[in-house]
Amino acid sequence: MSQYSPRLSRLIDALRRLPGVGPKSAQRMAFHLLDRDREAAGQLGTALGEALAGIGRCPNCRMFKEDEACRYCSDNRTQSGQLCVVEGPADLVAIEQGTAYRGRYFVLMGRLSPLDGIGPDELGLPRLAELLDEGAMQEMIIATNPTVEGEATAYYLAEMAKARGLRVTRIAQGVPMGGELEYVDGSTLTHALSGRRAV
Amino acid sequence: MSQYSPRLSRLIDALRRLPGVGPKSAQRMAFHLLDRDREAAGQLGTALGEALAGIGRCPNCRMFKEDEACRYCSDNRTQSGQLCVVEGPADLVAIEQGTAYRGRYFVLMGRLSPLDGIGPDELGLPRLAELLDEGAMQEMIIATNPTVEGEATAYYLAEMAKARGLRVTRIAQGVPMGGELEYVDGSTLTHALSGRRAV
Repeated sequence: MSQYSPRLSRLIDALRRLPGVGPKSAQRMAFHLLDRDREAAGQLGTALGEALAGIGRCPNCRMFKEDEACRYCSDNRTQSGQLCVVEGPADLVAIEQGTAYRGRYFVLMGRLSPLDGIGPDELGLPRLAELLDEGAMQEMIIATNPTVEGEATAYYLAEMAKARGLRVTRIAQGVPMGGELEYVDGSTLTHALSGRRAV
Repeated sequence: MSQYSPRLSRLIDALRRLPGVGPKSAQRMAFHLLDRDREAAGQLGTALGEALAGIGRCPNCRMFKEDEACRYCSDNRTQSGQLCVVEGPADLVAIEQGTAYRGRYFVLMGRLSPLDGIGPDELGLPRLAELLDEGAMQEMIIATNPTVEGEATAYYLAEMAKARGLRVTRIAQGVPMGGELEYVDGSTLTHALSGRRAV
C-alpha cells in the first residue's frame, strides 16, 4: 500500500518533476498547498493552464512569446545592428536585467552536443542563418556559457557569422566582480590574464 | 516594463508561493516546464485540480483523506487502543514509513501558539476530547516536536488524557542514530542522560 492516497500521490509525483525538487520537498510542497495555502494551489493550477495554452515561441529569436509582437524583436532593437546569441531563456533574462544591452537576441534553447543528438538543426541555426542573410545585423555577440559545449557552439556560431562578413565578439571571461584572486581557478585566471586591457 | 510577459509572470509568481522556492528557482522551474517538460506542466496542473477538488480532511484524525473511509481510522487500528498525536501530516507519514506503529492518529495541524492566535479550538482539541471520551483508547502517545511550542502542546495534551484516565507517553528524546556525542548539543545530551535505560 502506497503511503499516500491516489490523488496525493499524483500531486507529489507531479511536483517531483520540477527541477531541484526531491521526494521530501515534493511532500512538503503538497502538504503546504493542501493544508495552508489552497489559494496558491488554485493559482498555480490556473497559471500553468494559461501558460501552456498561451505561451509559444517567437519564430525569430526563439524566446517565449505570448503577445502578437515579440518584445525582443522590435524595430528599434533591430536598428542596433547587434545580435546576442544565448543558450537559454534564463540567459536572455539575465542579460536584459543586468546590463544595458538592448539589441536583438537569438536563443539556441541548448548547445551543440552531438552525443545527445543536438546538432545545428535542433538549435535553429538554419533560421539564424536566414536572419543573418537578411543583412540588418552587423555584429554577433556570442554569449554561450564558458563550458566545453558552450565553447564549441561559440566556435560554430563564429564561423557562421564570419562567413557572412559580420563582426563577431565573445563576452569576456575573467575574474568575476567581488571575486578574490586567491580562490579563482587557474583556467579563469589564465583567461583574465590573456584578456587584459590597457587602463 | 516587467521582465516577463503577463502569463509567464503569473506562472513565476505562483511557483514562488511554493515553500522553499525563491525568485531564481521559480524562474528556473517555469523555464524548465515551458521549454523542456510541457507534459510535466500539464500533469501538475491536472494533479493540483484533482487534489483541490478531491482531498479533504478526515473528521476523526484530521489527516488528508480522499476516499470514503480514512485509512488511518480503520477498526483494527482502533483495536490497538493507541492514539498517536502529531503536529502535521508529514509527521504522521514519517511515523508510518519509519516505524511499525499501526495504531490510530490525531493530527493537530499546528501547535499551541497563543501569540499567533492558535489555541485548543484551532487544533481540534474539542474533537480529540470527544474521541478520548468514546473510551476505545487506552494510551496517548504524544509525538509533537521537541520545540518550546511542541513541549507546551504536549503538556496540554497530557493533562487532557490524564483527566480521562489514559496512559500518557511521550516519544523519547536523546542522541539520534548515527549521531556523534561530540557534536550533539547539551540540551539533547541532558535528555539522553536523564532518559537512560537499563541494558
